[in-house]
Amino acid sequence: MAGNTFGHLFKLTSFGESHGRALGGVIDGCPAGIELDLEKIQLELNRRKPGQSAIVTQRKEPDTVEIYSGVFEGKTTGTPIGFAIHNTNQKSKDYSHIKDSYRPSHADYVYDRKYGFRDYRGGGRSSARETASRVVAGAIAKQFLSNVKINAFVSQVGEMKLEKNYKELDFSKTEANPVRCPDMETAARMEQYIKSIKKEGDTIGGVITCVVQNVPIGLGEPVFDKLHAVLGGAMLSINAVKGFEYGSGFNGVTMKGSEHNDSYNSDGTTTTNLSGGIQGGISNGMDIYFNVAFKPVATVLQSYETINKEGEKVTAQGKGRHDPCVVPRAVPIVEAMAAMVLADFVLLARTNKI
Amino acid sequence: MAGNTFGHLFKLTSFGESHGRALGGVIDGCPAGIELDLEKIQLELNRRKPGQSAIVTQRKEPDTVEIYSGVFEGKTTGTPIGFAIHNTNQKSKDYSHIKDSYRPSHADYVYDRKYGFRDYRGGGRSSARETASRVVAGAIAKQFLSNVKINAFVSQVGEMKLEKNYKELDFSKTEANPVRCPDMETAARMEQYIKSIKKEGDTIGGVITCVVQNVPIGLGEPVFDKLHAVLGGAMLSINAVKGFEYGSGFNGVTMKGSEHNDSYNSDGTTTTNLSGGIQGGISNGMDIYFNVAFKPVATVLQSYETINKEGEKVTAQGKGRHDPCVVPRAVPIVEAMAAMVLADFVLLARTNKI
Amino acid sequence: MAGNTFGHLFKLTSFGESHGRALGGVIDGCPAGIELDLEKIQLELNRRKPGQSAIVTQRKEPDTVEIYSGVFEGKTTGTPIGFAIHNTNQKSKDYSHIKDSYRPSHADYVYDRKYGFRDYRGGGRSSARETASRVVAGAIAKQFLSNVKINAFVSQVGEMKLEKNYKELDFSKTEANPVRCPDMETAARMEQYIKSIKKEGDTIGGVITCVVQNVPIGLGEPVFDKLHAVLGGAMLSINAVKGFEYGSGFNGVTMKGSEHNDSYNSDGTTTTNLSGGIQGGISNGMDIYFNVAFKPVATVLQSYETINKEGEKVTAQGKGRHDPCVVPRAVPIVEAMAAMVLADFVLLARTNKI
Amino acid sequence: MAGNTFGHLFKLTSFGESHGRALGGVIDGCPAGIELDLEKIQLELNRRKPGQSAIVTQRKEPDTVEIYSGVFEGKTTGTPIGFAIHNTNQKSKDYSHIKDSYRPSHADYVYDRKYGFRDYRGGGRSSARETASRVVAGAIAKQFLSNVKINAFVSQVGEMKLEKNYKELDFSKTEANPVRCPDMETAARMEQYIKSIKKEGDTIGGVITCVVQNVPIGLGEPVFDKLHAVLGGAMLSINAVKGFEYGSGFNGVTMKGSEHNDSYNSDGTTTTNLSGGIQGGISNGMDIYFNVAFKPVATVLQSYETINKEGEKVTAQGKGRHDPCVVPRAVPIVEAMAAMVLADFVLLARTNKI
Repeated sequence: MAGNTFGHLFKLTSFGESHGRALGGVIDGCPAGIELDLEKIQLELNRRKPGQSAIVTQRKEPDTVEIYSGVFEGKTTGTPIGFAIHNTNQKSKDYSHIKDSYRPSHADYVYDRKYGFRDYRGGGRSSARETASRVVAGAIAKQFLSNVKINAFVSQVGEMKLEKNYKELDFSKTEANPVRCPDMETAARMEQYIKSIKKEGDTIGGVITCVVQNVPIGLGEPVFDKLHAVLGGAMLSINAVKGFEYGSGFNGVTMKGSEHNDSYNSDGTTTTNLSGGIQGGISNGMDIYFNVAFKPVATVLQSYETINKEGEKVTAQGKGRHDPCVVPRAVPIVEAMAAMVLADFVLLARTNKI
Repeated sequence: MAGNTFGHLFKLTSFGESHGRALGGVIDGCPAGIELDLEKIQLELNRRKPGQSAIVTQRKEPDTVEIYSGVFEGKTTGTPIGFAIHNTNQKSKDYSHIKDSYRPSHADYVYDRKYGFRDYRGGGRSSARETASRVVAGAIAKQFLSNVKINAFVSQVGEMKLEKNYKELDFSKTEANPVRCPDMETAARMEQYIKSIKKEGDTIGGVITCVVQNVPIGLGEPVFDKLHAVLGGAMLSINAVKGFEYGSGFNGVTMKGSEHNDSYNSDGTTTTNLSGGIQGGISNGMDIYFNVAFKPVATVLQSYETINKEGEKVTAQGKGRHDPCVVPRAVPIVEAMAAMVLADFVLLARTNKI
Repeated sequence: MAGNTFGHLFKLTSFGESHGRALGGVIDGCPAGIELDLEKIQLELNRRKPGQSAIVTQRKEPDTVEIYSGVFEGKTTGTPIGFAIHNTNQKSKDYSHIKDSYRPSHADYVYDRKYGFRDYRGGGRSSARETASRVVAGAIAKQFLSNVKINAFVSQVGEMKLEKNYKELDFSKTEANPVRCPDMETAARMEQYIKSIKKEGDTIGGVITCVVQNVPIGLGEPVFDKLHAVLGGAMLSINAVKGFEYGSGFNGVTMKGSEHNDSYNSDGTTTTNLSGGIQGGISNGMDIYFNVAFKPVATVLQSYETINKEGEKVTAQGKGRHDPCVVPRAVPIVEAMAAMVLADFVLLARTNKI
Repeated sequence: MAGNTFGHLFKLTSFGESHGRALGGVIDGCPAGIELDLEKIQLELNRRKPGQSAIVTQRKEPDTVEIYSGVFEGKTTGTPIGFAIHNTNQKSKDYSHIKDSYRPSHADYVYDRKYGFRDYRGGGRSSARETASRVVAGAIAKQFLSNVKINAFVSQVGEMKLEKNYKELDFSKTEANPVRCPDMETAARMEQYIKSIKKEGDTIGGVITCVVQNVPIGLGEPVFDKLHAVLGGAMLSINAVKGFEYGSGFNGVTMKGSEHNDSYNSDGTTTTNLSGGIQGGISNGMDIYFNVAFKPVATVLQSYETINKEGEKVTAQGKGRHDPCVVPRAVPIVEAMAAMVLADFVLLARTNKI
């Protein structure tokens, strides 16, 4: 309820600040008997961690996960999986530009107003560093959902769009380039663009598309917990996300019903899939696909004007090692959230019928 | 958890099928002492009900709400508010075209697959008729949030967009036309367009924009329950919604950080508001605004091919009195969901500090 | 969270005041496909309702339940089951003795302090009339749990105890006498005793024992939601309950470990059952049995001294038609709560393993 | 929902097995701004830890808590408090007597049946070692509830009862003896008795009484979450607990209403307090007091017959360092659970009124 638990049956409760001692979480409700490949969890974390390539932040954070409980003899036991990622370089830093003034479009101001004060080190709890815990939980959810295929990728950076339908793409290429766009030619152009933005000390937004295949029919609940509503809420909870659409999305607005309806084949599949694999909030077995819009990172390496706690105007300078574009590193986070949502609904669907 | 409860502290649990005996709900957690104007609740329901104008469904449903509990001597008592809306014309109808075959892009097929069978009368629980309960709860939430102003309106129908910033609009005009677009000239064009779509027996999508003003600073939780994540999930749970964006939304993707950041004035307000009133998931006191994309209604008054339960191809004919465009009647639903989300967070914010 | 929802997967959200228009609730999460015998639900309500015999309150409340949704063609649909019980005689009564002063050991005083004011008619929400909603939900849970046998009965009234082990009892006799004690001889003595108490205008406490048989192995969660912890919380939530014990209970305190341990037979059953069918919070397939202690009803038909809202001493007179002993009518309530707890855990247990 | 989270607003999610790498938890919803004395948390843990005296288990577990997040500059930040207690001596031990056979009245058998297998090291998740996490969370809850006084103590060991009313006791004596009974003379007798039981290789049950003073009026919810129902569920979730009673408890059963009712003084206090500080589920400001019954520890240092996984009869020998009587070490656990319940309701009570 205070916002640090996600899910109802497969649940992550996360903790940790950007520059605190450790961050981590507890995964509760993970079924017993999953043969857990711990290396795969670390590999997912590595996809998210800083310093992977020239176009992401150059911070050094090894992000090594330690599993404390809930796994025995290589299998999940059905009891909670506690884990932590220790922060290795908590050396005292200069936070004066954050401590006393409010960075524009960050959470500094609202935290101070909400809580009375804040942990200002590296953004504290508002830092996207918190998403490391989500990636751990998502990696476990993926292993539970072994038949479901979840592939996210970068489909837009600034104005630069990937102009192909996802069915034309080879998802194995997503990890073959630092942008995580599965079309190598578009990826190369995006990479150059991000580098030029970085050189300016500026940042740029982007879109991640996610495709989920082999989804069982019947996931999602009819009213408030429609599958796409929970997926949308999950994606919107990722730092810097400004929008979500699935299936025909915002384009569907301009269509007529006679164009938009998906006709059934005799096996229950549909000839088209403008519904995006979800009808009435419930999965119909077709591919689920959705887009997640990310704004540009707020930290620009430029000087800016703002206010301090006393409301006085001050000039500050953006510094540190930050991402010029957040979407390449956000790809595993989108997948992790999708995996957690699906794991939760797979468990819930076991209770629908006598 | 099974999806029929919304909210954590201010909660609606809803029930009811389209053509069952009654629909309704229980509002739990509504604080004691609100002087409740019952007529205002009915007025909100009237905004949602069928038959208001020539461009909405001509069904006759009086949608009269009966309050069963939780209100005494004109005030909320702090105990649960039970209510029901009785269905007045449950006469036996011909449902054979729904009962035995699956309407494209409806929930018929997935319900049968999920539950083993379904209440096929008028779509059963998957019908948007269920949103009447939301409007009741939202109307009560609005009275609790007496200082907060929530104004939703139609900003797009098909390709036809309202090309004004919300600050140029007079929200008192929203109810002055059947489209619920506060720009009378645009509304007139939209109305004509919807009528032409209706004449074709077809339907069309649209966008609703919602503006929330006078929001207290500090609503929303840092991680999973970011204010916009919960708002987004709420909007996506409304029937026919395909997308949600707030603040700069999908357009923010193409901006640079140096353009997108909102600078602070010395009173903590910002010079621009691309953040959409929410930073780091927490309200900053500026206007919250967001867009909700609705697909065209799936029921078209044309003949169509589909399958029956046995997977055999059949031809069916759309019939009944349906909305050619859902957005005019969805305006009060969007407001109701926004009001419930805010009421919930207002209560939760009371627990943030010692 | 505000206390009007019970359960996690099989959930009842209840509403209604003693003398309001109606009370009722929403049962959410009930699996689809249960062939529901509506008459059995009414029969359970009849067991709880006033006026059944000379030893319970003589109020006239028909307590007829109306099901509004979630049932179609005789089966549960998996969607929420809304229901209401209308209050038929809401004629204006004289509440002045309740309205302006606080009845001792009732909730009058704390409601006023908690909420600022209260619905004083018949105790409002604090009335045990609210348990009618629980009986409805429990009756549905029983039909879901068709193989599980739940038998509650009166085992003590005042000092008068049923001195037999439950295995010597014939539960079919429970309904054969007004006390609901399955030993006819003891029941007759209890009945006489209650009549004598009633003649004094006084009330007396009692104990209900509940035995649950044919429980699947593996229900209950290891830590906070141990099966007996949830059962205990459920029983303690019934009006007038002061204590709960299961298995060896308070007597187990005086035993040595070597005496208390239950040895295993080779089929996993145990030779003794001091554990009460639950080990480590999880059902082991043996009979679950527990005792629930009820204090005497607070309303005595005598004059008493108390205070009014201004804190002034006043003398008042107990009146109305009240139960001299609450346990006979509480038997179906205990069973209903037990059934809801078990239904919830049966559903949850489906999610424990891959 | 899977049982490892306690509370609704002030919440503990716990993890960890007896002999795993670490146990710990996440406290979510703790309000910002509490000046946290970390030493006091460790002191509470020390009260629970093994090896404190001759009458408790002689295992060596330092139980040092590490706080990972949620505390900054000595104060709670309002964000989740993650913590861990590392197990220092996880050396490989001989678990063959547990691994292959089922200890009577332990959770071994039901875990295997529920989850398909189990972490058999030291009882895994079913071990009372898990309660260390509860003590940490309770110690923080106590600091939030700085005005509320919570005093638990041992009031019975086997047949040996403390025959004084709690008002005659000096709670400062509770920690002055190893039994944690505040009457030194009774404590000395209990200590001798426990030593004699220990010498036999046997164990004995006991009762803990808890008194909570200075409770604000108005805590607790009217129906399912009555204050005593949540307290009872909390206590019953502690390992080895078989019963709970509050106020007049099981003795109240034998009283008449005219004797049991608590008359009001003009300031709203009551002349007697058989209600135990709670009326209609809501605190009335009087002292809350309750009893918690603990069965004897199941591990006796004697040989016993049982079955193995194949259902074959085997003879095994109890060994290890176990508590002859669990109640002295359970005193801080009872207090911790009471503190968590009250902290949760204090926060919830902030949302009751406009």
